[in-house]
Amino acid sequence: MTVFRVGVHITPRRGLLDPQGKAVEGALHSLGFPGVSDVHVGRYVVIETRAADAGAAADSVRGMCERLLANPVTEDFEIETAAPT
Amino acid sequence: MTVFRVGVHITPRRGLLDPQGKAVEGALHSLGFPGVSDVHVGRYVVIETRAADAGAAADSVRGMCERLLANPVTEDFEIETAAPT
Repeated sequence: MTVFRVGVHITPRRGLLDPQGKAVEGALHSLGFPGVSDVHVGRYVVIETRAADAGAAADSVRGMCERLLANPVTEDFEIETAAPT
Repeated sequence: MTVFRVGVHITPRRGLLDPQGKAVEGALHSLGFPGVSDVHVGRYVVIETRAADAGAAADSVRGMCERLLANPVTEDFEIETAAPT
């Protein structure tokens, strides 16, 4: 068993309202970044977990996303490649 | 001017207390993932901004991180490659 570090992007589903993103977009305009046209704010979770190989680590993290980390109604998640630590 | 989509990872600085990560780690153990040894919870911000080229887009997003998005005392940020939308 090796320890793998796996990153997960969890983002608001496209098309759903993202009030935090809209607030950041407005603040960036006020700060002098007029070229900003869209902002989405999600979470980035880095998990270190023991697994037999990288595929098993990614599968395990997928289960964690489905059961705890991501809201299946409003969010999408994407798992980065698992890398041994 | 082209619209570029730029992703930014904002993570708690290594070595600083990450209470949200500790809470998630405990919850994952309770849910039957005993192999999890460390969890860090950060933010993932996706920004669409107009710029002359990918380098200018990344520079602009770096300024946004320094001025608004990341806390320079407690957080690190990392900018992904800017891609035209």
